[in-house]
Amino acid sequence: MLPQDDLQDLLAQAVEIVEATTQIVAEKLHAGFTYRFKEDKSPVTEIDTAVETFVRAEVERRFPGHGVLGEEFGASQPGGDYQWIVDPVDGTISLRHGIPLYGTILGLAYRGEPMLGVIALPMLNQIASGARGVGAFINGRKVELADVNTLGGVPDQVIAVGDRRQFIAAGRVDLFDRLFELHPVVRTYTDVFGHVLALQGSVGAMVDFDLKAWDAAATRVLIEEAGGRYERLPSAPGREDRHDVIFGKPGAVAWLLEELGRVGVL
Amino acid sequence: MLPQDDLQDLLAQAVEIVEATTQIVAEKLHAGFTYRFKEDKSPVTEIDTAVETFVRAEVERRFPGHGVLGEEFGASQPGGDYQWIVDPVDGTISLRHGIPLYGTILGLAYRGEPMLGVIALPMLNQIASGARGVGAFINGRKVELADVNTLGGVPDQVIAVGDRRQFIAAGRVDLFDRLFELHPVVRTYTDVFGHVLALQGSVGAMVDFDLKAWDAAATRVLIEEAGGRYERLPSAPGREDRHDVIFGKPGAVAWLLEELGRVGVL
Repeated sequence: MLPQDDLQDLLAQAVEIVEATTQIVAEKLHAGFTYRFKEDKSPVTEIDTAVETFVRAEVERRFPGHGVLGEEFGASQPGGDYQWIVDPVDGTISLRHGIPLYGTILGLAYRGEPMLGVIALPMLNQIASGARGVGAFINGRKVELADVNTLGGVPDQVIAVGDRRQFIAAGRVDLFDRLFELHPVVRTYTDVFGHVLALQGSVGAMVDFDLKAWDAAATRVLIEEAGGRYERLPSAPGREDRHDVIFGKPGAVAWLLEELGRVGVL
Repeated sequence: MLPQDDLQDLLAQAVEIVEATTQIVAEKLHAGFTYRFKEDKSPVTEIDTAVETFVRAEVERRFPGHGVLGEEFGASQPGGDYQWIVDPVDGTISLRHGIPLYGTILGLAYRGEPMLGVIALPMLNQIASGARGVGAFINGRKVELADVNTLGGVPDQVIAVGDRRQFIAAGRVDLFDRLFELHPVVRTYTDVFGHVLALQGSVGAMVDFDLKAWDAAATRVLIEEAGGRYERLPSAPGREDRHDVIFGKPGAVAWLLEELGRVGVL
């Protein structure tokens, strides 16, 4: 375990780095940007590459011995104790179409254990941050999730879900479709926008499948530090690198696990 | 038809009124607000009633002979040539949960024909406005929808859809479910947030069912003035007061009408 003093300093520096990326996003948006499709057919813009280049340079400058894994440029120093993970733009489909619900993710693991996470939603002026034992914050204000209360209970909450194509990729489109039948207000609040809605309790929980390591790099620490529950489901063989997760208010996560199990899709 | 000079003045005044409501929303959010459930089980907050009270008073003060129809307080002077329609908070479920994707709608019809529309998304600092023959604007900048281009075509667009419960209410849940099978990126961008995404071309089109008059009060004028297509589908008997609509880029609307027809849900 890291001493907590170190972690508070690391968190403060991670927030500085991520805050600075929101300027890069704003400038590139203003100037206009191009995009291309990667081999896996996912789109990548100049904003993705500019943000990741900046974050990698900052981490290397501030923490010379630490490793960095990023969506666009892979891994550097993969053997070290400290590993940063960056997703420069989570929600590139949204960014490309001008839907203001994308964000930047930065996480840090120490000997494989996630220790801190930061998410910026630049178009919503929100920065979520948190570290183990330090707490979770949105724009510097501490977040503590109220569990589902009895007034209305879980059906009165909104449930967030990722895009259906993520569930197709995970071979679990049955779960996506049944979710809409089980709960009256399921909404596709995809990418880190949904993660921040879960952190602030705006949705009872989120069901998000087929995430890569960088998509999930910040969320477990944030949700757990806010008093929420984060469940990573067992992966099917060959999908060990993907994260299929349900997280949010403990009562809502429990309800989802039970209901999805009851109808045989979990 | 109204002379265009009158319409430009009416539009400027409507924008003033709607801009002022965003202050009311901000103040009430800051102070905290309560909510209750109406007879139809939809939630209503103090913000809904405060905004509608303000808009009605402004319309009555500025245009003494005009009628007003509002979601919360019904109709006044329903026989006159000029009829304003107001939805103080479209997306009350979102507002109540702190999801920042709700808005205020104000429309004006002259002898039954929609003439102008204004939508505010207070948490996104966006005001959409438009009038017949005057054009459509977002934050004062003219909007002209580019039609679907050939690069990627309609499957490369995002398609917005309302909540599944609206389709259940309309007896058309089959259409909601098939839509997700027909197109790879369908997202529930509900309420006027989806309408503004369609106006700015961020989604190719939106499929929105079971709207009441005030939910749809601004959108037709905005979309058509931006060069888009707005289709209101025929209502089943007993549902004549509900609007089942598809709107957005002409090519995307045409694609949806054809595909939904082909699979037998339209």
